Amino acid sequence: MLLRMSTLFVRTLREDPADAEVPSHRLLVRAGCIRRAAPGIYTWLPLGLRVLAKVEQVVREEMAAIGAQEVHFPALLPREPYEATGRWTEYGPNLFRLQDRKEADYLLAPTHEEMFTLLVKDLYSSYKDLPLALYQIQTKYRDEARPRAGLLRGREFVMKDAYSFDVDDAGLEAAYQRQREAYQRIFTRLGLDFVVVSAVSGAMGGSKSEEFLMPTPIGEDTFVRSAGGYAANAEAVTTPVPDPVPYDDVPPAHVEDTPDTPTIDTLVALANERFARPDRAWTAADTLKNVVVALEHPDGEREVVVVGVPGDREVDLRRLEAAVAPATAETAGEADFAAHPELVKGYIGPGVLGRANTGREDAVRYLLDPRVVTGTRWITGADEHGRHVFDLVAGRDFVGDGTIEAADVRAGDPAPDGSGPLELARGIEIGHIFQLGRKYAEALGLKVLDENGKAVTVTMGSYGIGVSRAVAALAETNHDDAGLAWPAQVAPYHVHLVATGKDPAVFAAAEELASELVGQGVEVLYDDRPKVSPGVKFADAELLGAPVVVVVGRGLAEGVVEVRLRRAPDGGSGRPTGDQVPVADAATHVGRLVADLLQA
Amino acid sequence: MLLRMSTLFVRTLREDPADAEVPSHRLLVRAGCIRRAAPGIYTWLPLGLRVLAKVEQVVREEMAAIGAQEVHFPALLPREPYEATGRWTEYGPNLFRLQDRKEADYLLAPTHEEMFTLLVKDLYSSYKDLPLALYQIQTKYRDEARPRAGLLRGREFVMKDAYSFDVDDAGLEAAYQRQREAYQRIFTRLGLDFVVVSAVSGAMGGSKSEEFLMPTPIGEDTFVRSAGGYAANAEAVTTPVPDPVPYDDVPPAHVEDTPDTPTIDTLVALANERFARPDRAWTAADTLKNVVVALEHPDGEREVVVVGVPGDREVDLRRLEAAVAPATAETAGEADFAAHPELVKGYIGPGVLGRANTGREDAVRYLLDPRVVTGTRWITGADEHGRHVFDLVAGRDFVGDGTIEAADVRAGDPAPDGSGPLELARGIEIGHIFQLGRKYAEALGLKVLDENGKAVTVTMGSYGIGVSRAVAALAETNHDDAGLAWPAQVAPYHVHLVATGKDPAVFAAAEELASELVGQGVEVLYDDRPKVSPGVKFADAELLGAPVVVVVGRGLAEGVVEVRLRRAPDGGSGRPTGDQVPVADAATHVGRLVADLLQA
Repeated sequence: MLLRMSTLFVRTLREDPADAEVPSHRLLVRAGCIRRAAPGIYTWLPLGLRVLAKVEQVVREEMAAIGAQEVHFPALLPREPYEATGRWTEYGPNLFRLQDRKEADYLLAPTHEEMFTLLVKDLYSSYKDLPLALYQIQTKYRDEARPRAGLLRGREFVMKDAYSFDVDDAGLEAAYQRQREAYQRIFTRLGLDFVVVSAVSGAMGGSKSEEFLMPTPIGEDTFVRSAGGYAANAEAVTTPVPDPVPYDDVPPAHVEDTPDTPTIDTLVALANERFARPDRAWTAADTLKNVVVALEHPDGEREVVVVGVPGDREVDLRRLEAAVAPATAETAGEADFAAHPELVKGYIGPGVLGRANTGREDAVRYLLDPRVVTGTRWITGADEHGRHVFDLVAGRDFVGDGTIEAADVRAGDPAPDGSGPLELARGIEIGHIFQLGRKYAEALGLKVLDENGKAVTVTMGSYGIGVSRAVAALAETNHDDAGLAWPAQVAPYHVHLVATGKDPAVFAAAEELASELVGQGVEVLYDDRPKVSPGVKFADAELLGAPVVVVVGRGLAEGVVEVRLRRAPDGGSGRPTGDQVPVADAATHVGRLVADLLQA
Repeated sequence: MLLRMSTLFVRTLREDPADAEVPSHRLLVRAGCIRRAAPGIYTWLPLGLRVLAKVEQVVREEMAAIGAQEVHFPALLPREPYEATGRWTEYGPNLFRLQDRKEADYLLAPTHEEMFTLLVKDLYSSYKDLPLALYQIQTKYRDEARPRAGLLRGREFVMKDAYSFDVDDAGLEAAYQRQREAYQRIFTRLGLDFVVVSAVSGAMGGSKSEEFLMPTPIGEDTFVRSAGGYAANAEAVTTPVPDPVPYDDVPPAHVEDTPDTPTIDTLVALANERFARPDRAWTAADTLKNVVVALEHPDGEREVVVVGVPGDREVDLRRLEAAVAPATAETAGEADFAAHPELVKGYIGPGVLGRANTGREDAVRYLLDPRVVTGTRWITGADEHGRHVFDLVAGRDFVGDGTIEAADVRAGDPAPDGSGPLELARGIEIGHIFQLGRKYAEALGLKVLDENGKAVTVTMGSYGIGVSRAVAALAETNHDDAGLAWPAQVAPYHVHLVATGKDPAVFAAAEELASELVGQGVEVLYDDRPKVSPGVKFADAELLGAPVVVVVGRGLAEGVVEVRLRRAPDGGSGRPTGDQVPVADAATHVGRLVADLLQA
């Protein structure tokens, strides 16, 4: 495969695009791989499309290796199946909805659980047909509130989504493990670093799910891990629940004037000054912070709830949302407070909160952090301006309407499995696998007859890889200040061949070298532009990022060409000086180099 | 590549699907290639997807051979570019429109002229960058009023759309010819019979276009051809305009009572009886039929117009629509007549028709068949019930507001280029190429600097192949009563290997043969099902339609397997008895057979 720079549809840019926040976005645009068509919607140009195709090929090979069969569903789907599972509503504004000329409702599918379930129901009827694994590589849609970072969070994107169908839990577990291992092979082949973390299933439903995260500071996902091997998305971390605390010697609750305590810190200072504990000082963790949030339910209902967390923690809206999915959450606004005059800003306490607590049906729901166990002793608002209540004991003086994992997770928090303190990091979600169980099969009636002729509901898994996102992840992993530095396995072409100067002999030699390389199956971009300076050509080679750069130029007079790697051999990125290779050996030398890189 | 029938995701059907009208639809569903997801929207199952991929590969190779470069645009596009060219409106109800969460307008693209124009404008600026040809193979959307015939007229479908960019007309002509020749090679390689016919450009605009039609009685397009080489879509046929006729000796027009003449035939009979011409009998061609139609303009305006055609012709709504595009047309209804009381049904004449004719601004537009030239002499309605006007002479007694190609084309009509009488046939449009000219470049400001530094507007072509439709066309061409009969080049696999009976030796031999064939690069479906009867297996083999069928069964005891072609060697479809081939030679024999078929 020979591309010529003189005719290749590419225009390299020296300037970063104004809207690009992250390196992959900047460089994919500058290197002419992608181009923005609308917010979160990109066009693939020839070089980017080649990378995408190579990533797809790796995915296809590994799916075939575990016996998954490829199909292809439409993107435009009727409402009914999604209505049957509740997702037509649950997806809320993230779903692109439309009507056809007959005013029938359609959607642009964000994922295809419903359709795969119906297809298998349509064609299969016996346990003998299972296990079955199907997949597609297909264009998906999600109307993100904040599309960002180029391909990392787009509104139209390419996904590989696979689905498994089994008669029993053991079958599902085995299918899940096969996919999990295939994912490990895929990301390893692509050279993407990854961590497998426990995750929440969210709108997908199901019993168990794990994410494949590529660690990077620009990642949108926060995850935790312990030295002992625990790893989870921050949203999935559960708080170890302390044992109940004896409270026999806690004095009765008492309300106190607490003027000039606009913050937790000032409240704690006042408590230590005026109501000192004999055993130790009060800390922020002794205060109970009641945070008002508004949930938006899929049916459009807006519900004000109060979340009680220890005062040294913040409410993490993403963890909160994961806990209340499919509802979404935001900090309560003025209108929410206006609708609930019992909530005295800054002094909200359990006195007015919770149906269980107040016995009033119209009380707002009161959800407590798991640390607020029976016997814990709190300073909190007294529902009056300028006053707080002290020695309020959970289980004695108040209860919640349930617990919720909404407090932020912090470095040093204990892992829920006892494997040590957690450290925090950020990552990009490049894969997500789910044990769906029977949710979709039940909703859509997918049953098969078992050995005894009895109809049993099928159990399913679903397994996604962000294929276009993986291209961005690759660019994020493989670049330096000068540009992209693709691994050979996914590079749009293997060799960037530069001819410099004006000597026709140079161009003739380069042309011949190009055709020898192509004859060996090497993919070559030949920069044959006659009037472009060597500096521009070299800068383009570094920006476009082929793994091997070959320069035919002045050295030709001494019978040599220069061969250099885009990245230093240690895998780090750099600008090593090239080897001088006799022109007669160049094709063989470069061919071997490319073969080695492809093996690596 | 080895597929096993025991695990392949396919369920063959013995019954035709109820909604399937044409063989390709019936057989693609029955053979488990596709499955309906919604009206005009299909899912590709593993076997169908393999055929689609092979067709795509042929298209890619031929596009690469003419230097066209592959890109990939989004399907979900913003309104603005389509607004700039007028197509947001012109597409009418055929366009899927939607809004995102911010209520911005989007569409699902039916074709991408606008986006390609903008992309090239974005990246290129000099004549030196041209010529340029880009293409994509991509999912398209069209909200058809009547999706039908499976993949033949769908609402979500796969197209190859290519676009050429040139500085001048000669460049466009050359680019057009390159695409035209590539299309001929593509359809030839696919084994699709085709006719290249002149076509109308319709909503696409531009100066010249041709369609590639596959002749078949089930085709939706009517085309004509003459023995002398003229070929055109019926919509594009132009009527040879006769010379004006002297009318000095035609008597003045006179209105006559014509009771009991509800039809043209009865009117002609009455004319011959009561107003006989001395020179010859009156015929239907002497009457002027004024047909009332309603045009629906893209802006929603409904316009009643009258089309005057010789009484021996019908108005062909598709030809009419092609002439009035982007407006659509239908026969006028009661409401239209109610709005125009001057139109006396059955007796409409020029007396009340046409602005030019009546001098009245509110008169309906009156469009005449090209045969109604000056001097022609007509019998037509007198705008009063029961009366007709005779000896009404065009150009003397009435004029139109213009001419229109709306009368039907008939076998025996003269070709417009004088190459003889036309014959009519039907076909499926499998490709359509357009010389767009500067319409899109002008609307969107695509200019480049020429040699003299002057900005010139680029001239464009656009070139489409219905890729998913081509799969249906292939099925339409290659089948018999028993099922599909794929050409080797696009068959989902080359060899259908059937093991019959229960003898483990048979299955072992089949297994070994399968792996030998796969080792040679042959694609094999091995029917390894242990408990399925030979009859069912043979029926499945015929339905699925691989070009070579190999049977390992009873003959194995005598050391032979049976090798047969799905189609007789003459290319016709049939069920020839197979050759008995020694099992030791079978792999070599079949391998050679497949290689020969792929060469053919």
